[in-house]
Amino acid sequence: MLNRNIETFIGCGAAYRDAKIVLFGAPYDSTTSFRPGARFGPRAMRGESFGIETYSPYQDKDLEDIAVFDSGDLELSFGDVKSALRDIEKRAAVIIKDGKKPVMLGGEHLVTLGAVRAAAAKHPDLHIVHFDAHADLRDDYLGAKLSHACVIRRCHEILGDGRIYQFGIRSGERSEFRWASEGRTAMRKFDFETLPETLTKLAGKPVYLTVDLDVLDPSQFSGTGTPEAGGVSFLELLYAVLEVCARTDVVAADLNELAPALDPGGSSTALACKLLRELLLAL
Amino acid sequence: MLNRNIETFIGCGAAYRDAKIVLFGAPYDSTTSFRPGARFGPRAMRGESFGIETYSPYQDKDLEDIAVFDSGDLELSFGDVKSALRDIEKRAAVIIKDGKKPVMLGGEHLVTLGAVRAAAAKHPDLHIVHFDAHADLRDDYLGAKLSHACVIRRCHEILGDGRIYQFGIRSGERSEFRWASEGRTAMRKFDFETLPETLTKLAGKPVYLTVDLDVLDPSQFSGTGTPEAGGVSFLELLYAVLEVCARTDVVAADLNELAPALDPGGSSTALACKLLRELLLAL
Amino acid sequence: MLNRNIETFIGCGAAYRDAKIVLFGAPYDSTTSFRPGARFGPRAMRGESFGIETYSPYQDKDLEDIAVFDSGDLELSFGDVKSALRDIEKRAAVIIKDGKKPVMLGGEHLVTLGAVRAAAAKHPDLHIVHFDAHADLRDDYLGAKLSHACVIRRCHEILGDGRIYQFGIRSGERSEFRWASEGRTAMRKFDFETLPETLTKLAGKPVYLTVDLDVLDPSQFSGTGTPEAGGVSFLELLYAVLEVCARTDVVAADLNELAPALDPGGSSTALACKLLRELLLAL
Amino acid sequence: MLNRNIETFIGCGAAYRDAKIVLFGAPYDSTTSFRPGARFGPRAMRGESFGIETYSPYQDKDLEDIAVFDSGDLELSFGDVKSALRDIEKRAAVIIKDGKKPVMLGGEHLVTLGAVRAAAAKHPDLHIVHFDAHADLRDDYLGAKLSHACVIRRCHEILGDGRIYQFGIRSGERSEFRWASEGRTAMRKFDFETLPETLTKLAGKPVYLTVDLDVLDPSQFSGTGTPEAGGVSFLELLYAVLEVCARTDVVAADLNELAPALDPGGSSTALACKLLRELLLAL
Amino acid sequence: MLNRNIETFIGCGAAYRDAKIVLFGAPYDSTTSFRPGARFGPRAMRGESFGIETYSPYQDKDLEDIAVFDSGDLELSFGDVKSALRDIEKRAAVIIKDGKKPVMLGGEHLVTLGAVRAAAAKHPDLHIVHFDAHADLRDDYLGAKLSHACVIRRCHEILGDGRIYQFGIRSGERSEFRWASEGRTAMRKFDFETLPETLTKLAGKPVYLTVDLDVLDPSQFSGTGTPEAGGVSFLELLYAVLEVCARTDVVAADLNELAPALDPGGSSTALACKLLRELLLAL
Amino acid sequence: MLNRNIETFIGCGAAYRDAKIVLFGAPYDSTTSFRPGARFGPRAMRGESFGIETYSPYQDKDLEDIAVFDSGDLELSFGDVKSALRDIEKRAAVIIKDGKKPVMLGGEHLVTLGAVRAAAAKHPDLHIVHFDAHADLRDDYLGAKLSHACVIRRCHEILGDGRIYQFGIRSGERSEFRWASEGRTAMRKFDFETLPETLTKLAGKPVYLTVDLDVLDPSQFSGTGTPEAGGVSFLELLYAVLEVCARTDVVAADLNELAPALDPGGSSTALACKLLRELLLAL
Repeated sequence: MLNRNIETFIGCGAAYRDAKIVLFGAPYDSTTSFRPGARFGPRAMRGESFGIETYSPYQDKDLEDIAVFDSGDLELSFGDVKSALRDIEKRAAVIIKDGKKPVMLGGEHLVTLGAVRAAAAKHPDLHIVHFDAHADLRDDYLGAKLSHACVIRRCHEILGDGRIYQFGIRSGERSEFRWASEGRTAMRKFDFETLPETLTKLAGKPVYLTVDLDVLDPSQFSGTGTPEAGGVSFLELLYAVLEVCARTDVVAADLNELAPALDPGGSSTALACKLLRELLLAL
Repeated sequence: MLNRNIETFIGCGAAYRDAKIVLFGAPYDSTTSFRPGARFGPRAMRGESFGIETYSPYQDKDLEDIAVFDSGDLELSFGDVKSALRDIEKRAAVIIKDGKKPVMLGGEHLVTLGAVRAAAAKHPDLHIVHFDAHADLRDDYLGAKLSHACVIRRCHEILGDGRIYQFGIRSGERSEFRWASEGRTAMRKFDFETLPETLTKLAGKPVYLTVDLDVLDPSQFSGTGTPEAGGVSFLELLYAVLEVCARTDVVAADLNELAPALDPGGSSTALACKLLRELLLAL
Repeated sequence: MLNRNIETFIGCGAAYRDAKIVLFGAPYDSTTSFRPGARFGPRAMRGESFGIETYSPYQDKDLEDIAVFDSGDLELSFGDVKSALRDIEKRAAVIIKDGKKPVMLGGEHLVTLGAVRAAAAKHPDLHIVHFDAHADLRDDYLGAKLSHACVIRRCHEILGDGRIYQFGIRSGERSEFRWASEGRTAMRKFDFETLPETLTKLAGKPVYLTVDLDVLDPSQFSGTGTPEAGGVSFLELLYAVLEVCARTDVVAADLNELAPALDPGGSSTALACKLLRELLLAL
Repeated sequence: MLNRNIETFIGCGAAYRDAKIVLFGAPYDSTTSFRPGARFGPRAMRGESFGIETYSPYQDKDLEDIAVFDSGDLELSFGDVKSALRDIEKRAAVIIKDGKKPVMLGGEHLVTLGAVRAAAAKHPDLHIVHFDAHADLRDDYLGAKLSHACVIRRCHEILGDGRIYQFGIRSGERSEFRWASEGRTAMRKFDFETLPETLTKLAGKPVYLTVDLDVLDPSQFSGTGTPEAGGVSFLELLYAVLEVCARTDVVAADLNELAPALDPGGSSTALACKLLRELLLAL
Repeated sequence: MLNRNIETFIGCGAAYRDAKIVLFGAPYDSTTSFRPGARFGPRAMRGESFGIETYSPYQDKDLEDIAVFDSGDLELSFGDVKSALRDIEKRAAVIIKDGKKPVMLGGEHLVTLGAVRAAAAKHPDLHIVHFDAHADLRDDYLGAKLSHACVIRRCHEILGDGRIYQFGIRSGERSEFRWASEGRTAMRKFDFETLPETLTKLAGKPVYLTVDLDVLDPSQFSGTGTPEAGGVSFLELLYAVLEVCARTDVVAADLNELAPALDPGGSSTALACKLLRELLLAL
Repeated sequence: MLNRNIETFIGCGAAYRDAKIVLFGAPYDSTTSFRPGARFGPRAMRGESFGIETYSPYQDKDLEDIAVFDSGDLELSFGDVKSALRDIEKRAAVIIKDGKKPVMLGGEHLVTLGAVRAAAAKHPDLHIVHFDAHADLRDDYLGAKLSHACVIRRCHEILGDGRIYQFGIRSGERSEFRWASEGRTAMRKFDFETLPETLTKLAGKPVYLTVDLDVLDPSQFSGTGTPEAGGVSFLELLYAVLEVCARTDVVAADLNELAPALDPGGSSTALACKLLRELLLAL
């Protein structure tokens, strides 16, 4: 008898009960204000993952040796932001309740809010490490509070001052930079230079790691809706991610804002796959 | 002294007070469930309009002889559907109040709802002539009532049975076709064959003409989010539009669902520009 | 507990034991002599199938009412043609043995040979109805006997004279046309005009229906490696397929030569999905 | 000893002295006012010609049986229109002097002027048959007399009234249509309906056949700088070209305005190759 | 009453009389010898500018605080190089006469010649700082003196020896490098290493800053007609531009050779927008 | 009399008997397991080579001063791997026999095997210097021994232990890295850091230099079938190639895996052309 067609990210074939990590996709980009397309990110990553290997020469580890379960994409309601965020929160909460780590693939960055709600419910002392080109600290965007441009501001409302660490930021309104500098978040502009001391502070603390892939320079990651020149390199991002995983207790993570159609040659999607492999191996 | 940069659709340089027709863009595609990008339609049409001429050899008329004002694009809030529809309704209402005809460029098809509200407020006897590949008659889409897939159903709630005439429909759920056939709308599948008798019925009546450009066959119009093979040709659509304008009292109109990035060669945008020219000349 | 990620063609969610029809993909294009990329056809069709509906207004039927199982793609060895064809033959043979009809998604046209072998083993009186722009009747191509350009010639070696009916052919070497005209195959150039009388002859006979999608005019189907102007329209092809299913005993079928990357706007993939839906409903 | 790399259009391998027809490319698009790229037309056609066959099932003839020489592309000076036209005229004149027929591959349509000069010098009674979407009858374009938009007007200055027959025209300024209708040219709008009676008039006369490929509907030929919806089909154009060749004395011909990068899937280039094959076989 | 559609570069909404800086576009690429498309640069930059912010975290300044007027694009005659350059010169001269700084958006690099003529007329002691991959020092290109490949040579004819400083050059004919090395221009190959000492020399002097964006490595700027591997990074270029503005008297500037269609993902256009923002803030 | 159309890589116009270096293309990608398209590499390089110059400012040398002959592309049989490799071997053997150096343009990396066979037959002491992202050391790939993923393993069967030096490797199965580390090959992961000491060892020895262009970071070279983030820069690769040429006796070389359609903007092809120019000048 033949099998039904199953498609998972490469090397993520564990049974759910054995899995330490559970992948899910949040294919949503309804509030994207510029170029949409991040909704196609998770599906593209699964398909293109077969262009990379399960083995990492960076960490000398293999996905075949760890247990990851890929639970597929949520079906989210475009045009109904609140219900979409609720569905994301529920999925993350189930995974956390079952003692596993959720790794979410966006989608636009707003989806992080749903997963942070679930993680904060479980870990009252949650901190966020945020890699991004954009500050995402607006109070509203054309009147909308639930917008990708406001997502870290909304997370701050849950966690409060001093719990969010931002790196690589190189775009925002003047007021966002001002607001951050008033002690709301710890913001490192442009690069990761202060990451080591941050990680010293966060040692052993529960951390939600959210990576807006546009923190990368567009030369390496052009497949995103709002490319910002002057970003970090893949290797800088890779080592930053590995460091966060090694020195804090990452309880949940996400990769966001891959819009595959904007880089039809596929380099951006391939990079995202490789980064996901490294993240899964490092968790 | 130099002029500020002004960009209008070709031949639409009349003063507002002289204009009989007022163009505006509704660059919104937040509820699009498949491939987004219709938000870029109106801007693309303005830019590409300079590849066509103001003169129509089909009607032997010239845009230079009529008075059209291009009021530009609305700035609509992605992720806040209700406020976006309110802004559209307001713009259309102002134009109608000033005794001019609004011609709206979408955006996804949901934007029609805003303009229909304004037109129906002015014309209680309003009828809709609807050219589309999709029935757009769902009651909700993944729980959302304000979705592109429900727009004609929402319009029906305003106008009631027997006031909506659909042509070219070749896609939908079984329940949509059933619902229509119960006397809700007059639906002609696949083509325009019954248009002449419909127009006889509608002679002299106020009509809102809404054109989802995916009524065209994808061979001629691939630049749209949900292409459906088996559609009408450009010339069939052109003559259908000219007939509606000639035989009824079109009080408002729209062209929707051009997603220019999906046809980077530009043929779809050029076709939409040409159809808009013909519509403006025929109104 | 969460489900593993399953991805099937829309509406093909039946259990294997209940299924009357079994889909499988043959993502192979190793002998393609011009533009490769057909290997990505089946996966693209599954993903894009969610842009169409399960209901057909052409046949007034719904995929939800019939039982189709999608067994996913074979993993075929590029660069080892014989083993690839063997794997295809095996998959088709299992499905046929279980009393179900295989519907194969290519891949280049050579994959047909594997499935025809399986079907001919079961049905000694098998006939082939072949829709294509190209004759595919070469004896060899640069010395290779197992090439997409030779696939119908190889099928002829199995079935013999007078068992193959070709329609829509508009490209080939002079010698291919000559060879066909010597009674080897019944070839209708350019269109389907003689299809009705062919179907009268084939009434009740077991038929393998193979559709090289480049039989379509490139205006409607540009996403293929060797587009040939002057082809048939979607509606002509649709009705031809429906006729074949209605008037003969189609025991197996395939759709080939969609190369989705060559039509990045997606119209070709969407058309292929729609044709597959209609084929499944008609079988 | 190895051969130098030679690249000709498929089947055009005759020796110069034996050739009846000589191909050359005029890769120039310097005056293109909208989307440039026609300069890459001839090179693309050579490369893609290996996707078609030398045999025509339409005419049952084979390029292998006739003698065509491909003399490659001229190196034309961008930004110096006069010298570019001079170089084209010289190449055409040499070919004509040697008793062969020049077939030129543009480039933008302005290149026709150079070849028409050479043909008119040899054939004082020259007529032009012109297939195009655009009238190309402007007296100047932003002050420039040597522009693609003026090319037929410039040819008229050489040939005078009543010697130019235009077909398929569906775009232009009002003044161009007026000017034509004053007896300057014989213009058939939109299609080829009056071609048969024109050819009766032109029987036995020396004809320059110039084909701006945008006469085709953009559904079949999107790879051109100024696509105009509502054009003719490939088969209509094919049979029109065959008729002109069969019923008049075509002394020179050209195919223009293929801009291959605007149709990256390759259908437009493939169509142009096929049309060129048929033209060469018909001459 | 509604406003006419106005489209300016983001944050450039000052009144003309208040403006210190005036933007204008020179959408011309008629002499481009390889891949054209730079004509679409200025329009693309305006449209895409809404993907960046008005605030610069690099300079901690905001476009909202300075006064820039965007006077739109010139309408230049393709195929008539002299008249195009005259129109550019006139526009620049008006702006300079009114005591404002012109910032021109190309177009191909030849447009610089028009603006340099205007600037040199006003500032007899004008110097040029030139960032580019290509030397642009040919005396002629296929006979044409007014070609993008000759533009700096033509500027040298106006300014004479020792007034032109070139950086980043990594392509040209041997004779161009020789000619420069004979004291004609000061040329720094590959990078900006000698920029500081140059700026010391130029302190207080009137400078025309011309940036051919292909000085950037194609990894960051692939949207240009002649990409040359081995270029500078965005940050290197950014700081070089800021230094020139800080340490000399930049009286006019331009950014050239963005061909947006060659980087459809939009990273190149976004980078150009960001660089323009920084340039405007630094002037 | 006119010349036949000849198309060679820029500056490679020497007569065969005078040439020291002979170029040929091996347009084959039949075993490519992910994205095909490398078959179009050599043709694209010839066409795009006219966007670069013959002069190198890096080496201060000019192609016009050396003697290179371009013998065009082999016509290889897709789907028949063995015969394709035989044809490649023959071409390389002829060139070597005539006392010239073959430089081959792939195609997928498997083509290297054919040329290595010819070079090893002539030079029993042959060593390979291998720049690549992928180890290419699998014993088989889905059962196929002749696959791009196995090519260096196959070369090892010819040359034996300690004769192959790999650089830049950052992808492979764990077993490949293990196998290499058992003394089979000398593998430097990620970069060229140990190249100098390798070249000291190889001084004066006959070397086959094989460059899989995906050793480059995808930011600079996205036009390849399997992009791997974290690669070397163009300048690093350029200087590595120059060093190998300067310090060993390179008897044959190849550049592989350019798939031009995956980088339609052309930067990857332009880079490959530039690297080839530098390689030819350095040999």
